[in-house]
Amino acid sequence: MYGVLPARFELCLVGPSAGPVRSAQGPEVVARYSYRDAPPPDIVLVPGGIGTRVLVEDHWFLDWLAGWAAGTELVTSVCTGSGVLAAAGLLDGYRATSNKAAFAWPVSQGPKVDWAPQARWVEDRDRWTSSGVAAGIDMTLAVIAGIHGEDVAASLADAVEYEWHRDPTWDPYAAKYGLCQG
Amino acid sequence: MYGVLPARFELCLVGPSAGPVRSAQGPEVVARYSYRDAPPPDIVLVPGGIGTRVLVEDHWFLDWLAGWAAGTELVTSVCTGSGVLAAAGLLDGYRATSNKAAFAWPVSQGPKVDWAPQARWVEDRDRWTSSGVAAGIDMTLAVIAGIHGEDVAASLADAVEYEWHRDPTWDPYAAKYGLCQG
Repeated sequence: MYGVLPARFELCLVGPSAGPVRSAQGPEVVARYSYRDAPPPDIVLVPGGIGTRVLVEDHWFLDWLAGWAAGTELVTSVCTGSGVLAAAGLLDGYRATSNKAAFAWPVSQGPKVDWAPQARWVEDRDRWTSSGVAAGIDMTLAVIAGIHGEDVAASLADAVEYEWHRDPTWDPYAAKYGLCQG
Repeated sequence: MYGVLPARFELCLVGPSAGPVRSAQGPEVVARYSYRDAPPPDIVLVPGGIGTRVLVEDHWFLDWLAGWAAGTELVTSVCTGSGVLAAAGLLDGYRATSNKAAFAWPVSQGPKVDWAPQARWVEDRDRWTSSGVAAGIDMTLAVIAGIHGEDVAASLADAVEYEWHRDPTWDPYAAKYGLCQG
């Protein structure tokens, strides 16, 4: 969603080294900066995907992420990205959520996190975590609304014809995956 | 959505040359093949975005696309990608739709197309066109349902916590953008 507002947000992908990074889904994207060279961000967004399972074993990466994210205005995650934030200690003492289809895994990464098993996304001070991929769209629209106003976010959702769920407690998936009673 | 089922679909990005291609939104992806070297596809998906405005002026590209797409099982588009298909003549005699916020532009590219101003997506034989970006998710789930069954598509939507609109006629955006009465 940030990418549709290039005058307001500059998207910057970072990776192990500058250059192509292959997704577990096949396609490659280009990291503009290596972790070491990445400039200080305003907003951090950690995505999910199966690659998260390797990242949480990489202690150099987790230390780097903890330092890089520490001074930012907002640290966010989509899907199992909250498992990576948790492994880096960035969610200790925070309330957070994650993908309902894989909820046990992020929980295993953050024993000091107050995990919410039913939430579209969770806003806790400067740490916002969203559930499965599509929930990340709703959370990001809420981030944009907080910075640029509700009208900007609503216009953006209409322009891409996305039915925005504005209520962070809307979550029919928790029951589908047995995390609460339906 | 195809990317979440890597055992069933192989995603392959193609571009002017193999290597990085920068989106108007900022980030770069990597084209695996140049247009000239791209192997025959099973499904073509033409995305939208502001880059479409340049593509429809590139007659070499349009001729290549018409030939590359001609023998495939299914040619699809998301958002203003249908304007590119139209400019390549691939929608002549077909019913099609596009992003409601920019509807006049694709229409201008296809005088021989039967444009549907109110539709989430349109399935007309081997040409499926969707409306704004999010509508492309719904259409793609319908493509997946057609190939692998409704249950596979529904499970995928649940796994990424996307509320799938299964009805191709669902379209509140046409009225929002003055294309029909609300």
